[in-house]
Amino acid sequence: MTVTTPARVTTLEVLAQLVDALGDAVSTASDDVAFARSDKSGHVSEAPPIAVVTARSIDDVQAVMRIATSTETPVVTRGAGTGLAGGAIASAGEIVLSTLAMNRLLEVSIDDELAVVQPGIINADLNRQLEPHGLWFTPDPASRAISTIGGNIATNAGGLLCAKYGVTRESVLGLSVVMADGRLMEFGHRTVKGVTGLDLTALMIGSEGTLGVIVGATVKLRRLMTGAAAVLSARFDTVDDAARAAAVVTSSGLRPALMELIGESAMAGISAHLRMEHTGGSRLILQTDGPGAASEAEAISAIITSLGGECEVSLEPEEGERLFAIRRAFHPAMAALGTVLIEDVCVPRSQLPAMFAAIGEIEKKYDIIIPTVAHAGDGNLHPNFIFDGDGPDGADVPADIWAAAGELFQAALRLGGTLTGEHGVGLLKRRWLRDELGDDQLQLQRQIKELFDPLGILNPGKVF
Amino acid sequence: MTVTTPARVTTLEVLAQLVDALGDAVSTASDDVAFARSDKSGHVSEAPPIAVVTARSIDDVQAVMRIATSTETPVVTRGAGTGLAGGAIASAGEIVLSTLAMNRLLEVSIDDELAVVQPGIINADLNRQLEPHGLWFTPDPASRAISTIGGNIATNAGGLLCAKYGVTRESVLGLSVVMADGRLMEFGHRTVKGVTGLDLTALMIGSEGTLGVIVGATVKLRRLMTGAAAVLSARFDTVDDAARAAAVVTSSGLRPALMELIGESAMAGISAHLRMEHTGGSRLILQTDGPGAASEAEAISAIITSLGGECEVSLEPEEGERLFAIRRAFHPAMAALGTVLIEDVCVPRSQLPAMFAAIGEIEKKYDIIIPTVAHAGDGNLHPNFIFDGDGPDGADVPADIWAAAGELFQAALRLGGTLTGEHGVGLLKRRWLRDELGDDQLQLQRQIKELFDPLGILNPGKVF
Repeated sequence: MTVTTPARVTTLEVLAQLVDALGDAVSTASDDVAFARSDKSGHVSEAPPIAVVTARSIDDVQAVMRIATSTETPVVTRGAGTGLAGGAIASAGEIVLSTLAMNRLLEVSIDDELAVVQPGIINADLNRQLEPHGLWFTPDPASRAISTIGGNIATNAGGLLCAKYGVTRESVLGLSVVMADGRLMEFGHRTVKGVTGLDLTALMIGSEGTLGVIVGATVKLRRLMTGAAAVLSARFDTVDDAARAAAVVTSSGLRPALMELIGESAMAGISAHLRMEHTGGSRLILQTDGPGAASEAEAISAIITSLGGECEVSLEPEEGERLFAIRRAFHPAMAALGTVLIEDVCVPRSQLPAMFAAIGEIEKKYDIIIPTVAHAGDGNLHPNFIFDGDGPDGADVPADIWAAAGELFQAALRLGGTLTGEHGVGLLKRRWLRDELGDDQLQLQRQIKELFDPLGILNPGKVF
Repeated sequence: MTVTTPARVTTLEVLAQLVDALGDAVSTASDDVAFARSDKSGHVSEAPPIAVVTARSIDDVQAVMRIATSTETPVVTRGAGTGLAGGAIASAGEIVLSTLAMNRLLEVSIDDELAVVQPGIINADLNRQLEPHGLWFTPDPASRAISTIGGNIATNAGGLLCAKYGVTRESVLGLSVVMADGRLMEFGHRTVKGVTGLDLTALMIGSEGTLGVIVGATVKLRRLMTGAAAVLSARFDTVDDAARAAAVVTSSGLRPALMELIGESAMAGISAHLRMEHTGGSRLILQTDGPGAASEAEAISAIITSLGGECEVSLEPEEGERLFAIRRAFHPAMAALGTVLIEDVCVPRSQLPAMFAAIGEIEKKYDIIIPTVAHAGDGNLHPNFIFDGDGPDGADVPADIWAAAGELFQAALRLGGTLTGEHGVGLLKRRWLRDELGDDQLQLQRQIKELFDPLGILNPGKVF
């Protein structure tokens, strides 16, 4: 990453202007700036940023952006730093703009089924505050206990429930955005329909901090589901069998709230981690919800059994949680095996068996294991590359692992899929962006970026 | 509308180039060019366009755009011409690019619940072809029997079922787009998740022909609903009572597939048109679908009765159709009263009673009636301004009607709403665009438009 602060303004001058305008919201404490060098990908930037500014208001954000513009200093907007693609990692010469303290739920409308929130509110905190109103913000990234709504929006976060309830884009009505030059803009509506002009709300969603700073959001809510959910856990001999069963469940028209597929080496790792008997094979874990939860579970169970799966069904919350614990143990089980590169491709769901086959080929070619789970309802796979991170390069991903990952991305693209279903491009997937978008579209996307950010100060080096 | 063809290229030369490249796809027949001067708004352009080119392929579209770019000739892309905002109206010096002959369903995937279509396919034709597969494209603009999917996408069409099933944006995965200079681009994915780069698919949806020509779409489908739908028809003394009842139904967490509110003067007009006894008051017509259709209808009926509504429920398709015939008669009933300006504001649904009150005030102030129906589940109102269109200006909307409409738009904006819920800005709402977007956002939107269309040849004079 190159330092783009012009020579005429020193880093110290930028810092002085920030402190002058924002006082103790500006931190240069080594812990703070060190924390901002990394995210949950484990990747660490080359050097610490200038400072971390913890904005308490839209005014604060505008003040930072005005200073950044006048001094041409790069700004990395950051929520909780839970990204997996290096999208909120900051390096030398950059200002980190944290929205984590702007964490209030400003308004709930039961009648309009919407909430107005500040960007720093944690997804799970929002849902805790919505629960007494009988409402629910459906996007549920696995990070929901620790990630912010602003970050969820900036990456168009997915999650486990998306096949039934949609991704973040489907749950955002409007956004307040501070532009690179400090101007505040309001995109979108409070209404569920609205076609006045271009859809800049959608353009912002998933833009990973490259177009503006999200300082507020009007989000669409759903009624909380009533009644207990049903959980199904099914064992199949092979991941191919499990993936085909998942496809049949979807084709049947049944709509489980979640359908998680756990590959063979993933199950082996989880079994070892949980010290459970490892019976081999692959597993499909599903949940149905709403008034028809029990009858849908029964219908799905019949399909699974007819396809050779061994299926357990539970209507009891505690028992359901026990069945689901296997899926929850995936990440800790992988972390116990070594340093992990968590990947995130998405293919048309009919191509899940083919994608698992492609992963098997790559495992053989590179002589590695790539334990994989998938959100089978929407074809989104998380292949986990495990490597020894205790070497001289620390958590940096070795070249052969990136080579294997590169083949995996190409396989996903060949199957009609995409590089990233829900984690974003960030820093770590930039080199494959052109493979998916092509030269012409990449150029067009860069031009849009330049329009929003003519000085190139918004999260430079990310995505594009 | 100004003619932007540069003096160095005459209209005849443009026509000669078109005929040379596209042969009999180019028509200058007076019927064809006259038809393209208008749409379902009734507005007619000042003069006929140069020609109507009926593209049969993406190559044809690219050929037109290359000629248009090299000669700097404006292009108006047109589907079935069913718009209500003048978005596809063409005038002197313009090429009309019709996609109506590119009307094939290219692919259906049951497993991936998607279809790939050409832009000119009629919404209802697509659904007829999908039905044997047990699938369904949910966006249902009232024009679905006559409007194209390309047009639905270009306007982000809504409809009656959106509160439950979403607007067009939620049903489009990817788009093939021919740019102003003739290049073909592919935006979006075949996957239900995907966050590689900026969401240019969403940017195209609702852009009304100003950014590019949609030449193909990958659309998301749903399983056809099984079982009979239930229809409810309820009479209330006042539109305020009916609007409040609609809000209570939504607040209850029940989710009718459609919920149509018919205002008092609209009911009077419909009663006269259908020669039914006019009992006064307002009406709410609802439909529930899916396995819970009957029980949901029962629950809604109880709510309506408790709020003073007189409610009929039908589980028989024929009887349901009879109840729904009242809503279907709205447009013919209005057309029988005079020339109609069909408006399209959207407010947060809790503001429906306030918006009906505002309409009442405007009726009094201007001494007119504004019969109104609303998609009550999403706060989208269609106030109908009736005027005498037999005067010297034909179907042109008189100044006082536009003044009343202007007040109506301002009222919608004051209530947190938008100028247009589903019809688009087109030609007829441009003058209010700034009121909703503000100067800064309007400028940004125009800059995006310029990026896609540096010569300003794509549907000039529309939206911006």
